Amino acid sequence: MRLTVYRKAHFNAAHRLHKSEWSDEKNVAIFGKCNNPNYHGHNYDLEVGVTGEVDPETGYLIDLKILKDVIKSEVENAFDHKNLNVEVPEFAALNPTAENIAFVIYNKIKAKLDVKYDIEIKLYETERNFVVYKGE
Amino acid sequence: MRLTVYRKAHFNAAHRLHKSEWSDEKNVAIFGKCNNPNYHGHNYDLEVGVTGEVDPETGYLIDLKILKDVIKSEVENAFDHKNLNVEVPEFAALNPTAENIAFVIYNKIKAKLDVKYDIEIKLYETERNFVVYKGE
Amino acid sequence: MRLTVYRKAHFNAAHRLHKSEWSDEKNVAIFGKCNNPNYHGHNYDLEVGVTGEVDPETGYLIDLKILKDVIKSEVENAFDHKNLNVEVPEFAALNPTAENIAFVIYNKIKAKLDVKYDIEIKLYETERNFVVYKGE
Amino acid sequence: MRLTVYRKAHFNAAHRLHKSEWSDEKNVAIFGKCNNPNYHGHNYDLEVGVTGEVDPETGYLIDLKILKDVIKSEVENAFDHKNLNVEVPEFAALNPTAENIAFVIYNKIKAKLDVKYDIEIKLYETERNFVVYKGE
Amino acid sequence: MRLTVYRKAHFNAAHRLHKSEWSDEKNVAIFGKCNNPNYHGHNYDLEVGVTGEVDPETGYLIDLKILKDVIKSEVENAFDHKNLNVEVPEFAALNPTAENIAFVIYNKIKAKLDVKYDIEIKLYETERNFVVYKGE
Amino acid sequence: MRLTVYRKAHFNAAHRLHKSEWSDEKNVAIFGKCNNPNYHGHNYDLEVGVTGEVDPETGYLIDLKILKDVIKSEVENAFDHKNLNVEVPEFAALNPTAENIAFVIYNKIKAKLDVKYDIEIKLYETERNFVVYKGE
Repeated sequence: MRLTVYRKAHFNAAHRLHKSEWSDEKNVAIFGKCNNPNYHGHNYDLEVGVTGEVDPETGYLIDLKILKDVIKSEVENAFDHKNLNVEVPEFAALNPTAENIAFVIYNKIKAKLDVKYDIEIKLYETERNFVVYKGE
Repeated sequence: MRLTVYRKAHFNAAHRLHKSEWSDEKNVAIFGKCNNPNYHGHNYDLEVGVTGEVDPETGYLIDLKILKDVIKSEVENAFDHKNLNVEVPEFAALNPTAENIAFVIYNKIKAKLDVKYDIEIKLYETERNFVVYKGE
Repeated sequence: MRLTVYRKAHFNAAHRLHKSEWSDEKNVAIFGKCNNPNYHGHNYDLEVGVTGEVDPETGYLIDLKILKDVIKSEVENAFDHKNLNVEVPEFAALNPTAENIAFVIYNKIKAKLDVKYDIEIKLYETERNFVVYKGE
Repeated sequence: MRLTVYRKAHFNAAHRLHKSEWSDEKNVAIFGKCNNPNYHGHNYDLEVGVTGEVDPETGYLIDLKILKDVIKSEVENAFDHKNLNVEVPEFAALNPTAENIAFVIYNKIKAKLDVKYDIEIKLYETERNFVVYKGE
Repeated sequence: MRLTVYRKAHFNAAHRLHKSEWSDEKNVAIFGKCNNPNYHGHNYDLEVGVTGEVDPETGYLIDLKILKDVIKSEVENAFDHKNLNVEVPEFAALNPTAENIAFVIYNKIKAKLDVKYDIEIKLYETERNFVVYKGE
Repeated sequence: MRLTVYRKAHFNAAHRLHKSEWSDEKNVAIFGKCNNPNYHGHNYDLEVGVTGEVDPETGYLIDLKILKDVIKSEVENAFDHKNLNVEVPEFAALNPTAENIAFVIYNKIKAKLDVKYDIEIKLYETERNFVVYKGE
């Protein structure tokens, strides 16, 4: 019995979209107001999906307490009330687009859970813009 | 033209997580406050997805009236305002985790719809915890 | 500058509507399926509003950390994953309707905050049914 | 790095379900109150998903400005505040069920985006009824 | 103990904004695309609030079954899947703006409930536009 | 016929809570992680309520196009994708708490609408924390 369990979380952060190897003109041309040098911010909503076999003994796919704690340590503690560009090492040289943030979260959570699980990340940057990454 | 139609529903129920073959100590260790012998409860939100070919004559995949009635008879009438452990036969010997409830709902709905349809069940236990089961 | 600050929280609980001084017939006639002796349950969503003057020094009406901690100790710790009828003393002799739960929450929170604040309680029993109580 | 980016939009429209080649009796028997000759209407909520490879240069799968503009020109300008049966050419001979509206939107958006992208359409007719079409 | 109980409902309808005593030019100038002669439509979301004293016997302000039935007979049966301008007598000579629809709903529900209750109507025309009317 | 019309909007911004006349120690003690010198951010959701008499001629309290344009020019253009502390003059010497942001928005919108209207501002800083200011 193969199934996916989801857990929601959120964090608030500042960021800007910027490529240091580009000129200011090119940064503005590509990223528009998201390139604001003074930063802007978001309430990021996160859904982490974990797929695998349900344990017939407990009826659990995974103890949600474990998943909740991994999300807390890997994502909330690391990103919440932070400036992603300045304070989160993964984005020192990686542009913090929603796509790249989902990729970073995927890798951080994947590394902390049993390898038998498949992981998927849904990240809302705003209510109207979101991404899904499944490690492909 | 293959497509999925979804219908939402909900039910309110009491439950506890408990394995009668385990000691009380083990039940508390594994299920924590969800093992409370006096029960707790949830507003379960349900999304049923039905996948198949659209009928070119009507433009319907399935008459939603049929799907709505199956959900009502199989899930809402059977589970709403009930104690899942005590009053729902499927959970007499099956721990009512979100995973197992989704599995039971899948089988009940699958049995009542034309075999040509694939079914998927999304069940929210809380706004932050939910599962998806597709019969795999 | 008079303003209202709101904080949301939630808890999951079992309950039944029942008056022990009534016959079983009268209980069923008045409370219907909510009288189920085996209990049912809800995800209760709570909004606590606190009204008063904004502190010109901090720009805060109230430190939300304080409000969050009061809601946690008075409501979440007391009600979450509990059977309201059996385990919460305030409902030993008080029928746990949404109206009465809002009344109890109002009094518990009011007693823990500075008397200068006006309090309001919005309690969702389901997404479609909710009550507002302001201490009148 | 393969990923899906989603953008939400909405439009308000009138429609009726009707097959002109059928008798009035058959139309009412199949489509019920949705066949009302005076029309009824909906706030349609739309999620457009675009799947492909993330550009390692920008960290974007697609510039959301492009996707937003395509949705605006192809869907919002074409459908919003319109009578789908009377004013939208695609439904002159096609019954505007949610299934068929999703199919039309899929084709309109697919035609305007780079062929390298896979597209998926989620269309809510009401909060409780929605469809997903991925071009299969 | 004075409190407000709320019940949500919804209906889907077609309408247009139009004053028959005005020229077509004036109608377009004032109402824009909402004046479309072929109609457009909405999923109207409705919250009905009822304020009064809680019955100390039952712990109910009002039996929600009664409120639900009044909303069903007065609003859902009367408006759902209808063309408000053509099929709902109250709008034969009254422009169906959100303001006027809320006013009509207020009067219909007020007339069916005990005069001791105060009523308030919150009507969402879209997720972003809504009105509140309390009979003042 | 007195009624309130609401319009929702949103903006994304960076901010920090900070009083320049305080020591760093006091700022951290009072504002905690919200004092982060590198900023964090939010998706602010805004509801603007306008109360007054409905025009019996049009059935409108206010043309929502006017309200939408005032919100766009006064709030969205001024705050969206901005750093509130650095780039918004109103917060040069005013701590951008949710309370103070609501106060600033109230005054900006009040100044642009007909004096006959009463205004109320509901501002969500996160889904769980929000404030209401009515100019008292």
